[in-house]
Amino acid sequence: MARTTGSFGEKTEAALREAAVELIARHGYEAVSMRRLAAAIGVQAAALYNYFPTKEDLLFTLMREHMEGLIAAWNAADPGGPPRERLAAFVENHIVFHVERRHATHVSNMELRSLAPERLTAMLRLRSAYEKVLRQILREGAAAGDFAVEDATLTAMAIIQMITGVIVWFRPDERLSVEEVAATYHAMTMRLVGAQPMRRRGAANQPRERLDV
Amino acid sequence: MARTTGSFGEKTEAALREAAVELIARHGYEAVSMRRLAAAIGVQAAALYNYFPTKEDLLFTLMREHMEGLIAAWNAADPGGPPRERLAAFVENHIVFHVERRHATHVSNMELRSLAPERLTAMLRLRSAYEKVLRQILREGAAAGDFAVEDATLTAMAIIQMITGVIVWFRPDERLSVEEVAATYHAMTMRLVGAQPMRRRGAANQPRERLDV
Repeated sequence: MARTTGSFGEKTEAALREAAVELIARHGYEAVSMRRLAAAIGVQAAALYNYFPTKEDLLFTLMREHMEGLIAAWNAADPGGPPRERLAAFVENHIVFHVERRHATHVSNMELRSLAPERLTAMLRLRSAYEKVLRQILREGAAAGDFAVEDATLTAMAIIQMITGVIVWFRPDERLSVEEVAATYHAMTMRLVGAQPMRRRGAANQPRERLDV
Repeated sequence: MARTTGSFGEKTEAALREAAVELIARHGYEAVSMRRLAAAIGVQAAALYNYFPTKEDLLFTLMREHMEGLIAAWNAADPGGPPRERLAAFVENHIVFHVERRHATHVSNMELRSLAPERLTAMLRLRSAYEKVLRQILREGAAAGDFAVEDATLTAMAIIQMITGVIVWFRPDERLSVEEVAATYHAMTMRLVGAQPMRRRGAANQPRERLDV
């Protein structure tokens, strides 16, 4: 998207993106003007239009790159093979990706409302492609008799909402590491689909030892 | 909160609340001025200050009443008795309450960011009281050997995120009724905590027998 090259332009664009994600997550897209963004990074508003002709171009770019990044991360993390292994990898990848991008995730989830129809459609298509991966894993697992799934669409939505929700409360410097959180969500997801966790499954009510991935 | 009584005042306040919830959900709190709210309901901006001295008073009232309504609905729905029954009632009450209040739920979840510290604390206290109900149900169920719960706090957050997420995609006029959605989420929640479902609720392709605890 950058119309300006070279290190000054690149730095400005990076600062702009970072400020945009933070300010939009904090105040909402509509309340954040290009002027406000420019002030946050110490440039003139007119300079921003070298990078993004409109504020919606900026929003759309942030949202599209977020979803494309998520899909690329999944493609790199997908182990293939049995549905149980793929589901475990899906949950872990999703949680790790999102806890590292809390503000961008808020923007991505909240500001679909701010996109014009054509771009909304493009974003929904990307989201749908990602959700389809999970639906297919669930359907394969159910077909193989590994998973109990009443409705693959609902279950996929339930799992995605559950694991995205981590960003609402999780702070990496608190009592649990992201690995511990991911392990607990792995155990919950496996039970949710009626599957055994990836390794040993201990007796009920037995704390952290059995959260092995 | 109404400083004006009588049917004109009540109608105006009701219209104001309804418009506020819709406009804030659509545009974000910061982007919705009292002037814009007044225009939406066809009164002068000055008239709104009879009902809510500040825009934040209005936001806080909407958010507080939403959470108080949720807690009251739960108190009315709580069957007492075994944790499994209470958990089933909790999930059903939560889903039914939220699908009827989609915009208010968005406002409640998104606009914590817009509250001043004291009011944020008050809201977080209400949310925490509600979450504590679920944590206690989970702990009782785990202590009774009915539930497999690694971490009651994480599990409560996971369940709440999962079941609140229904409002993101559910539209009552689509392929599923709210009862069908609630029944599927009931089955998923019971499995998530390693419990048997309450009884056989209708659901497609259920290999429910293998939902061993």
